[in-house]
Amino acid sequence: MQSFSYYIPVRLFFGKGELNRMATEKLPGKKAIIVTSGGTSMKKYGYLDRLTALLEKNNTAYVIFDKILPNPIKSHVMEGAALAKAEGCDFVIGLGGGSSIDSSKAIAVMATNEGDYWDYISGGSGKGQPIVNDPLPIIAITTTAGTGTEADPFTVTTKEETDEKIGFGCDKTFPYFSIIDPDLMMSVPPKLTAYQGFDALFHSTEGYIANIANPISDLFALKAIELIGKYLPQAVKDGSDAEARANVALANTLAGMVESTSSCTSEHSIEHAMSGYHPELPHGAGLIMVSLAYNSLFAQKVPERFVDMAKALGKTDAKEPMDFVTALHDLQKACGVDQLKMSDYGIKKEELDKIATHAKNIMGGLFDLDRYQMTHEDIVDVLEKSYR
Amino acid sequence: MQSFSYYIPVRLFFGKGELNRMATEKLPGKKAIIVTSGGTSMKKYGYLDRLTALLEKNNTAYVIFDKILPNPIKSHVMEGAALAKAEGCDFVIGLGGGSSIDSSKAIAVMATNEGDYWDYISGGSGKGQPIVNDPLPIIAITTTAGTGTEADPFTVTTKEETDEKIGFGCDKTFPYFSIIDPDLMMSVPPKLTAYQGFDALFHSTEGYIANIANPISDLFALKAIELIGKYLPQAVKDGSDAEARANVALANTLAGMVESTSSCTSEHSIEHAMSGYHPELPHGAGLIMVSLAYNSLFAQKVPERFVDMAKALGKTDAKEPMDFVTALHDLQKACGVDQLKMSDYGIKKEELDKIATHAKNIMGGLFDLDRYQMTHEDIVDVLEKSYR
Ligand SMILES: [Zn+2]
Ligand SMILES: [Zn+2]
Repeated sequence: MQSFSYYIPVRLFFGKGELNRMATEKLPGKKAIIVTSGGTSMKKYGYLDRLTALLEKNNTAYVIFDKILPNPIKSHVMEGAALAKAEGCDFVIGLGGGSSIDSSKAIAVMATNEGDYWDYISGGSGKGQPIVNDPLPIIAITTTAGTGTEADPFTVTTKEETDEKIGFGCDKTFPYFSIIDPDLMMSVPPKLTAYQGFDALFHSTEGYIANIANPISDLFALKAIELIGKYLPQAVKDGSDAEARANVALANTLAGMVESTSSCTSEHSIEHAMSGYHPELPHGAGLIMVSLAYNSLFAQKVPERFVDMAKALGKTDAKEPMDFVTALHDLQKACGVDQLKMSDYGIKKEELDKIATHAKNIMGGLFDLDRYQMTHEDIVDVLEKSYR
Repeated sequence: MQSFSYYIPVRLFFGKGELNRMATEKLPGKKAIIVTSGGTSMKKYGYLDRLTALLEKNNTAYVIFDKILPNPIKSHVMEGAALAKAEGCDFVIGLGGGSSIDSSKAIAVMATNEGDYWDYISGGSGKGQPIVNDPLPIIAITTTAGTGTEADPFTVTTKEETDEKIGFGCDKTFPYFSIIDPDLMMSVPPKLTAYQGFDALFHSTEGYIANIANPISDLFALKAIELIGKYLPQAVKDGSDAEARANVALANTLAGMVESTSSCTSEHSIEHAMSGYHPELPHGAGLIMVSLAYNSLFAQKVPERFVDMAKALGKTDAKEPMDFVTALHDLQKACGVDQLKMSDYGIKKEELDKIATHAKNIMGGLFDLDRYQMTHEDIVDVLEKSYR
């Protein structure tokens, strides 16, 4: 058994109605900056109003920063941090999907540290400096089941000038606590439900095949894979199915715990390169596009963990590593996402080589966590096989 | 799905040789009080010398408090805390089995809080006051695979004057970090290996049948049960089997995570009443003695989770709740602990009624976490059926 470490210091509150804790729970500060999406859904469904009413009951002040894009950008991190400083906020609440919560983490860092956010980013044009001051405490309130960010320290941001979409995270960027209330997820539209569910799935499958997988991350990963295989098609088909929503939400949180204890692999680097150049491409959709070719390659090169994943995904009679790819394809069909095309998002065939290079440039670190070392040609080959 | 919360803020370092981190890891203070057993094994096997040498490399001062008994007593908690205060220690290292680490937690509390330790204990003659000041940071270094205390906030101590053996724990008594290095467990004798392995097993089975079990505690519990079923007989038979030791160590840590996310049930209250009156009775042995009758009762009254546990314990064709009791009995035989007698530890048949009363008095809270509410007669009946 290899050595491993475990550290997930976040407190999770999981269940229907848990948002109401915001009125009673001891909060880590007196004035919050609420970081939320620039879209309309947090207001339309009343989540933002509910949150502010609960904060008022808890005698806690707040300001609202509601500009976050689906692919969060660095300038919004800097703007939010400036607002937090100007308003004297002493904690951050991320309300929304992964983009809002990721941004809340980055804003928490830049509200207490000098300079530019990219000074602290490793990879690409980032300067990789250590953060000097503790970030503000972060509360994550998820309204989607996608990135698992409520249970991990990570955040992904794009530097607009260079199309660099890069992750960041450290011990201090775990949320102070997170609320996962499936009631807040009932209104996510089917397509987004599918994209985000597959994102959670890939956090789990990548964490299971990463070379730093360990017995505890394996527990979280196989359970998340099982729950997504069982419940995602139903959550996509009927968003009002509370049981399906709750189980997909749980799978997503478990997938976040996989990220905290193991890691994503190069599949994520490849997708980040794609959506770095094409920000309109949803992260989950990009992953789905490359997943069959990517996992076929790894099932051939390092077959040992794929049968477990096929079984977890519902193919209980699985015997061959490629059974996982079959099960994955079946799940994509069941969720109506087996026909996604890169060309629909403006990706050109001639770009694939450039994307492959970009993947290693911006998130080369994840390639080191693969059990098989992909060559540039391998990456191009995966992209070409995935191209439509 | 019921609401649940999750909070295990301890950092775990698991694996062969991890003790060496004590020379390099950033420690939470400048002067440690090392809390360890009054027995000879920590010295005989060189663990204490290794630890102090590593601390010296890490430029960290220490004092040694080596009086802890197998069933820790309150007066040693008070004595250790007084020493920590007098010596200006700013963190605590528990080195040894559950008793040393439990004591290190209690000493950490009393080194920063006034009055008597029993002022803060709930149950029995404890005053149930909240602790006012944060305890000193705690580092747990386990040399046995028994209580799971390295991954939970709990500590059990006996008040000598009243034979009260009661648990305590709060968010602040999680270790700062814990080292689980199976190399340090190779010398545990067979009988103790069995007792402690079964203690870990019961933390897991009780956590699985407790009414606050949740999807995350279930993951830890079933895996711990599986590992103990698979590896404990071998660890008992051949203590030098590194693979068996490592897997039992992992099971024990997972069982601690079960305690942090679910809870023990009344089985533990009953045993604590037994060993409260008879401190020479090892905790794990007491649990083994009552476990067949206890689990038979619960398998009849609330059968729903017992087949899962039987399967996890290796009886893959299990169909009936009582299959778990059979599997448990088989494991006891395989570990040579199926013939333990209460009478060998001085327990008299006439005492059983008093023990049953004591169980509810000192740890009544755990009965509330049972899915079936035991009457006094039920407890007496379990004890009588277990009596030899
Ligand atoms: Zn992702
Ligand atoms: Zn125990």
